[in-house]
Amino acid sequence: MRFDQITIVGVGLIGGSVGLAAKARGIVGRVVGVDRDPTRLDAAARVGAIDDGTTDLATGVRDATLVVVCTPVDRIGHTIRAVLPHVRPGTLFTDVGSTKGNILRDLGEPVPYYVPAHPLAGSEKSGPEHARADLFDGRVTVLTPVGTDPAAVRAVGGFWEALGCRVGTLAPNGHDRILAVTSHLPHAVAAGVAGMTQPEHLDATAGGFRDVTRVAAGDPHLWAGIFQANRDAVLRALDRFAGRMAEFRNLLDANDADGLVRWLADAKQVRDALGT
Amino acid sequence: MRFDQITIVGVGLIGGSVGLAAKARGIVGRVVGVDRDPTRLDAAARVGAIDDGTTDLATGVRDATLVVVCTPVDRIGHTIRAVLPHVRPGTLFTDVGSTKGNILRDLGEPVPYYVPAHPLAGSEKSGPEHARADLFDGRVTVLTPVGTDPAAVRAVGGFWEALGCRVGTLAPNGHDRILAVTSHLPHAVAAGVAGMTQPEHLDATAGGFRDVTRVAAGDPHLWAGIFQANRDAVLRALDRFAGRMAEFRNLLDANDADGLVRWLADAKQVRDALGT
Repeated sequence: MRFDQITIVGVGLIGGSVGLAAKARGIVGRVVGVDRDPTRLDAAARVGAIDDGTTDLATGVRDATLVVVCTPVDRIGHTIRAVLPHVRPGTLFTDVGSTKGNILRDLGEPVPYYVPAHPLAGSEKSGPEHARADLFDGRVTVLTPVGTDPAAVRAVGGFWEALGCRVGTLAPNGHDRILAVTSHLPHAVAAGVAGMTQPEHLDATAGGFRDVTRVAAGDPHLWAGIFQANRDAVLRALDRFAGRMAEFRNLLDANDADGLVRWLADAKQVRDALGT
Repeated sequence: MRFDQITIVGVGLIGGSVGLAAKARGIVGRVVGVDRDPTRLDAAARVGAIDDGTTDLATGVRDATLVVVCTPVDRIGHTIRAVLPHVRPGTLFTDVGSTKGNILRDLGEPVPYYVPAHPLAGSEKSGPEHARADLFDGRVTVLTPVGTDPAAVRAVGGFWEALGCRVGTLAPNGHDRILAVTSHLPHAVAAGVAGMTQPEHLDATAGGFRDVTRVAAGDPHLWAGIFQANRDAVLRALDRFAGRMAEFRNLLDANDADGLVRWLADAKQVRDALGT
């Protein structure tokens, strides 16, 4: 598994980490970064995530053997369409988008060498200066191929494994439905708690508040895009969550100690299954 | 600041950590543990949190200069009442309860040498085997004295400072109202997210889910007691939170990108003020 040139489109925290990890693991000859923002290209080069950078998409992808699209989720499909005329035959594509259905819709017809991917890794920080070579170590990357060339799926799956991931496969809609609960809802809830807290009360917080709200420090534009890209599934998850919190409220209002313990024990059972 | 004998009533994670911290910082001659459960006393002795243990409350507190009550919040007031006849004149009391109004109600008339305290420190783990000498390092301990002897407040405040805490003061109701938002609501929300997640989807979780749900691994009995002890304030916090999440749902339903960004940015501003 070795790629002569990987081109990373969008060199933020994730894109930068792809570059650092690929170089650290010796699976790439050269890493080229493409970004609209030249200061991000400079920062990515400074931390060693890319060998070269350009703001011109066509130039950046021309010699790529693999293009990794790390733009916000509402631009990934359009970016792939824009890149296609400029690559050599057989160039592989993958991405890091947290939503998958919207990308296929944006793409229109399937692109046989594009292997949709979602590495379940990230941070509340953003920007290439926070990129880490070990960001993908032991993480799961979900592939959601539809009408994709099987050899491309194997090669791109091998790429993510080489970066340290375990690789699984889901249908795009299944991915979006599950991630609405396991990632998008928790983010909304964290922001809901943080947003209703008066700053002068932050002294009266401990580890619980810190943990529950940590992801609320994430980039609002990035996350607004993710919520909108997966709107239907997120709305359903919000409704299920509201129902569950209403159950809790009713148990507390009724002073139902046994019911509260059961409700909390159900949650503990799930959380204990995950480990620390 | 030195106490000849501290008696800790309830030697779980917090009680055990009080013992370890007091010994590590050399502010105590002898630590006695009182617990209904002899196996917990053994475990607390094994980790070095107590010098001696007994299941008999009267015996355990007889020679105490300071009694630290670390029982669940619905038992703290009753425990102090039960201890009073057995201590020497001038013995100080403090506690670690996450709620304060209910304890004063349970106590009935004020106890001048009882300095109500809430060290904002804890863990989703429980039991003396998880006690840590550094649990209180740099944490805030809130005192809520009402009709308390000023010298007792100074001495007990000094005790918590000696364990590594910064000490602040609030009215009991103010404490309960603030903590409903900064601690009790986050716990309920974490359990709400964990409880609605299908275990077979835990593979599709990343750091965000782990952080948001971590405290849901806490002891259901302990937390049911905290919610019930602070019921009115928690119900109000739940309602405000539900309103805030309904705002988010409406913005998403209406595809209001600017509104979503603003809603998320408000939360980010609060969370950023807290630091990592």
